[in-house]
Amino acid sequence: MTNNKVKVAVIGASGYTGGELLRLLSGHPHVSIALTISSEKSAGRALTELFPNLTSILALPLESMEPATVAKQVDLVFLALPHTQAIPMVATFLECGKSVIDLSADFRLKGSKAYEQWYGTPHTAPHLLNEAVYGLPELHRADIQKAKLIAVPGCYPTAAILQLAPFIAGNLIDVDSIIIDAKSGVSGAGRGLGLGYHFPEAHDGIHAYNIGKHRHLPEIQQELTFLSKNKSGTTRAIDSISFTPHLVPMNRGILSTAYAKFSSKASKADCQEIYKDFYKNEPFIRLFDSPDLINPNHVRGSNFCDLGMTYDPQSGRLVTLAAIDNLVKGAAGQAIQSMNLMLGIPENEGLRSPGLFP
Amino acid sequence: MTNNKVKVAVIGASGYTGGELLRLLSGHPHVSIALTISSEKSAGRALTELFPNLTSILALPLESMEPATVAKQVDLVFLALPHTQAIPMVATFLECGKSVIDLSADFRLKGSKAYEQWYGTPHTAPHLLNEAVYGLPELHRADIQKAKLIAVPGCYPTAAILQLAPFIAGNLIDVDSIIIDAKSGVSGAGRGLGLGYHFPEAHDGIHAYNIGKHRHLPEIQQELTFLSKNKSGTTRAIDSISFTPHLVPMNRGILSTAYAKFSSKASKADCQEIYKDFYKNEPFIRLFDSPDLINPNHVRGSNFCDLGMTYDPQSGRLVTLAAIDNLVKGAAGQAIQSMNLMLGIPENEGLRSPGLFP
Amino acid sequence: MTNNKVKVAVIGASGYTGGELLRLLSGHPHVSIALTISSEKSAGRALTELFPNLTSILALPLESMEPATVAKQVDLVFLALPHTQAIPMVATFLECGKSVIDLSADFRLKGSKAYEQWYGTPHTAPHLLNEAVYGLPELHRADIQKAKLIAVPGCYPTAAILQLAPFIAGNLIDVDSIIIDAKSGVSGAGRGLGLGYHFPEAHDGIHAYNIGKHRHLPEIQQELTFLSKNKSGTTRAIDSISFTPHLVPMNRGILSTAYAKFSSKASKADCQEIYKDFYKNEPFIRLFDSPDLINPNHVRGSNFCDLGMTYDPQSGRLVTLAAIDNLVKGAAGQAIQSMNLMLGIPENEGLRSPGLFP
Amino acid sequence: MTNNKVKVAVIGASGYTGGELLRLLSGHPHVSIALTISSEKSAGRALTELFPNLTSILALPLESMEPATVAKQVDLVFLALPHTQAIPMVATFLECGKSVIDLSADFRLKGSKAYEQWYGTPHTAPHLLNEAVYGLPELHRADIQKAKLIAVPGCYPTAAILQLAPFIAGNLIDVDSIIIDAKSGVSGAGRGLGLGYHFPEAHDGIHAYNIGKHRHLPEIQQELTFLSKNKSGTTRAIDSISFTPHLVPMNRGILSTAYAKFSSKASKADCQEIYKDFYKNEPFIRLFDSPDLINPNHVRGSNFCDLGMTYDPQSGRLVTLAAIDNLVKGAAGQAIQSMNLMLGIPENEGLRSPGLFP
Repeated sequence: MTNNKVKVAVIGASGYTGGELLRLLSGHPHVSIALTISSEKSAGRALTELFPNLTSILALPLESMEPATVAKQVDLVFLALPHTQAIPMVATFLECGKSVIDLSADFRLKGSKAYEQWYGTPHTAPHLLNEAVYGLPELHRADIQKAKLIAVPGCYPTAAILQLAPFIAGNLIDVDSIIIDAKSGVSGAGRGLGLGYHFPEAHDGIHAYNIGKHRHLPEIQQELTFLSKNKSGTTRAIDSISFTPHLVPMNRGILSTAYAKFSSKASKADCQEIYKDFYKNEPFIRLFDSPDLINPNHVRGSNFCDLGMTYDPQSGRLVTLAAIDNLVKGAAGQAIQSMNLMLGIPENEGLRSPGLFP
Repeated sequence: MTNNKVKVAVIGASGYTGGELLRLLSGHPHVSIALTISSEKSAGRALTELFPNLTSILALPLESMEPATVAKQVDLVFLALPHTQAIPMVATFLECGKSVIDLSADFRLKGSKAYEQWYGTPHTAPHLLNEAVYGLPELHRADIQKAKLIAVPGCYPTAAILQLAPFIAGNLIDVDSIIIDAKSGVSGAGRGLGLGYHFPEAHDGIHAYNIGKHRHLPEIQQELTFLSKNKSGTTRAIDSISFTPHLVPMNRGILSTAYAKFSSKASKADCQEIYKDFYKNEPFIRLFDSPDLINPNHVRGSNFCDLGMTYDPQSGRLVTLAAIDNLVKGAAGQAIQSMNLMLGIPENEGLRSPGLFP
Repeated sequence: MTNNKVKVAVIGASGYTGGELLRLLSGHPHVSIALTISSEKSAGRALTELFPNLTSILALPLESMEPATVAKQVDLVFLALPHTQAIPMVATFLECGKSVIDLSADFRLKGSKAYEQWYGTPHTAPHLLNEAVYGLPELHRADIQKAKLIAVPGCYPTAAILQLAPFIAGNLIDVDSIIIDAKSGVSGAGRGLGLGYHFPEAHDGIHAYNIGKHRHLPEIQQELTFLSKNKSGTTRAIDSISFTPHLVPMNRGILSTAYAKFSSKASKADCQEIYKDFYKNEPFIRLFDSPDLINPNHVRGSNFCDLGMTYDPQSGRLVTLAAIDNLVKGAAGQAIQSMNLMLGIPENEGLRSPGLFP
Repeated sequence: MTNNKVKVAVIGASGYTGGELLRLLSGHPHVSIALTISSEKSAGRALTELFPNLTSILALPLESMEPATVAKQVDLVFLALPHTQAIPMVATFLECGKSVIDLSADFRLKGSKAYEQWYGTPHTAPHLLNEAVYGLPELHRADIQKAKLIAVPGCYPTAAILQLAPFIAGNLIDVDSIIIDAKSGVSGAGRGLGLGYHFPEAHDGIHAYNIGKHRHLPEIQQELTFLSKNKSGTTRAIDSISFTPHLVPMNRGILSTAYAKFSSKASKADCQEIYKDFYKNEPFIRLFDSPDLINPNHVRGSNFCDLGMTYDPQSGRLVTLAAIDNLVKGAAGQAIQSMNLMLGIPENEGLRSPGLFP
């Protein structure tokens, strides 16, 4: 039976996203983790030195290895690398005929110009940008099933797009009125050290950062624009969203609070109906009547995205809430969800665990 | 010298606001804490049983006592009680000729109709509403100096009003575009038990609550409307603010993120100039160039309100950040600031401590 | 296939232990959760109102039901109730021929006298005490396999017994020198409200409680005495352990630090060999060379018990560390481990998940 | 009046200890902060860039400057530097006739041999070791008053020595039975980055480190030995203490739990009497009847050391608890307490604030 398993490599295995891929893949019945690749710095160390939680679960060394060598040993590759580092690897793996699921930002934006504008460096493989499918199954399921290269969405965009999509698709909100005020746990900043993530600085505080300049903003606008043009027939770009991320003293999780003016008269019931209808067959979307229940501590460790909303008839404003685990639905879990679709196996295989509460 | 000190009573001494009043007043050179009053349930216990931090600082018992008896022993009274409970006491103390600083919500709204609408019960002393001065010195300093009854602002309104006031006063923003997304530490919910404040439920999570329905909203709208009419000459009420409070896993502090459309073309520099000008002589307002530095962990335990902002010319939207300690500038500290004004002593007496960081 | 599943009821489903049983059992391939029973207060509510994390995982109502009625619908019962409440239910279920796994303290102590001494009330079914097997598989596996009634160990005893057992069994330490300094997350105190568990009181602090008087002490002494007599042939009771539990600001997990004098000369290597030998086939015991790695954040949500130790030749003292998730290996997971043994299925069925880190 | 103030420099002003010195000194009526010195890396930056909490409190630049130049501008110097770096500076300042309060470990151990053994490098100014007074006023008040060089105790030793001193001084406990199990908040590790202090690694976990090897152990043993020889007339060294520090997910504070066998029969009342008697005139020692109340969250930001204990007649073991704020009584506050003694002003000047709770 092992022979029938898909052999995968996780490249960038020493960070939080890499570790989360390994945690989830270790329990996936159709996957065999063949290689865990890291930078030279960590190579040779046991994976469990960096992730003691995986002790007696995964007995693999961290290795440093050329992409072409990796390609010979696996069927599919997960890349959990900083942006720019994924680009050359993706090219190699695709040439070797391997499927690639890239968790970096390198293939999310559709144009090399946008990439250069937001990431400050030219894209070195622009010809591959169109091959990449934005790995948000709720919006691109059919394309993901046929893809060879998945660009896994950023954590904030996952929450923001999912909470706004039904209203954008239905052309129901004034797209110039959208404000997204998002709150993330500290693991979202990765495992790299920084004074802002030093425990005494991050604990018992909260602050905004990269206001209006965060690199996840173009992703959100691109996908909502795509959806808007595709579903509602409008032709205009959504390009004036205010997006403010905040750092919150918790380990995992994003809570995204989005505001928008409703285009016409509506009620809370109408809005909820729109949600229910849009997401009626989605395995990982959960809708709650009470927006107060949308809380990352209900999705911790799981692939769910919890959604809720309220509507204020006086101001005509909709307030929607989305909660995800930034490392699962916001990264590793969503990557595996795409993999399942690519492999033609049940979409929630290996992803059925409920959240860990409390 | 003790004879020259103002004798005060703190009524409602067993809660967090009461405890914070005592912490701050214990170091105030012109105040003598004469009585600490609590409900019958706690009466007879030493104050330090409820606040071990005050051991060897304040050796007072908690007492249960009629307002009229209290009035005989003190010059000024702080009320740190749940709403509705303050009303009859205020009446008694004023009749006895005592100054009252009320930290409840009972005298903040100017009309008994608004009170009934938001608090769900008729106001039982509506004739006193006009005597009360809204105790935000940055807006009402002159009136506070002459007042006998201060209604100390709510914690969220303190942050929200201070961050928006300069732009409202200058008639510079579209008042229909205001959105306030606020984040509070758990002490803001008080010392009363509730499942949502049980450590394992509140820790490592974040959620919105009372969206668009929080009782601090009418306070914010009342004060901003007042300011707008007074300073900018407009006649319209500000009544369509979206206000969403969130509960954050930290002990103290509020971070308030407010969004509004600028009425005309502006730059970040313009906006900062407006801030600097409006707050040029304020002892407790601190302006920061970088909005990322606005963080409750820099004001912990202090009476400062830290303000920052950014301006996005593309969307024409201003994003302002305010951080306060909800128990100090958001409650006890601001109450003492008002007391200092009433007594004609330096406004920052007893309130000079910097924030405790980290 | 559903017909082949064991039908279980979880009684006391509204607390953290109940919720954790449901989280773990929902993914167990051989179990069907037939009933979730709660007190009348919660009866009629959907389980997911109390555990939003289980939404779309378990669609069951909380019910209030007589034990005899429950017994007709299930094969096996988990009791997650406060002590004293489990006793009459256990009697009924056993009479009805059902297997019972009791997570309360009611059947852990072997004598009714000890029960009365520590729990302050007579045991109302003392004849059943000898039927109960102390559900620590590492010590009582064979008995558990044949048992009808399991007394699931307390969370602290699980950690303390496992970290000391190899040395007690080998008669290698001076039993009068044992000191256990244990640290627990707040979920260990349950879901019931209390001022000490109110977020602002528990956050950013740590304190000892019930020093030398905690009800888990007799459990620890009973089991270590049993082991000592059984394995090392000594006849004396272990009755002078100092046990100090502390409350730590984290959600889940226990770190137990135990100290003891080694009876003879030893080295760190010897001690580790003793550990390795004693636990060589245990699926849930993980030994680490570095005691610094023993940390509840590596076992979060998993059934592992991580062990490490150091030995100081100068003082002749051994320091051992144990980390568990108090709700899993310290309660619900260990209960399921016993169930698996009773059912003759793989001991780690439904319990294979690694810890959630970070 | 400014002329009468003592002019001080804080060297090493960019770390947590430096920042805490500045926070406390900024409110000290007899001190003028003349210079804030940092490494070249930070020199030229405003102090408030590193400590935004001090904005509008202290408007000083961080400077890089030779000790001899510093010496010309100040009367007294606080050194908040890593060990080894303080040594050459101390020599210079003493030569210039300045008083030095050194918060590093460089002058705490009485012998250069012990220093080399524990710090792994020879002491480069051994002739000054005897000039240094160990700055624990409760033990060395008279010497501190006359000292020119103070070695401020480590944070753990402060708690451990204070909780054990009365029993050691009275020769009441078996010194071979002492075990100290200490728990510290993360600020104790300083402001330097490290993976173990990265928020997601430190949050929601707890672990031991440097078991039996922590550099604070020789300090504890040296001072308790000194006390024992001095007060009880014994001649033996205390050299077999087991000391296990743990890292706890809180910002500030140490809770130290110490265990020891009582030499003779005693009762809890006896032990408390010993405490009360030993500490009867100490301004910063607070004794509590209930050991559960000993909690760093009651001393946060203050210079108090809270002490409690329990005695178990069965085992003859005493359990004592001590709580301090590691940055105040464990560092900056205690340094200022020594300064006050050196200056002949009230010992608690500038240190009268109660703890910040919650």
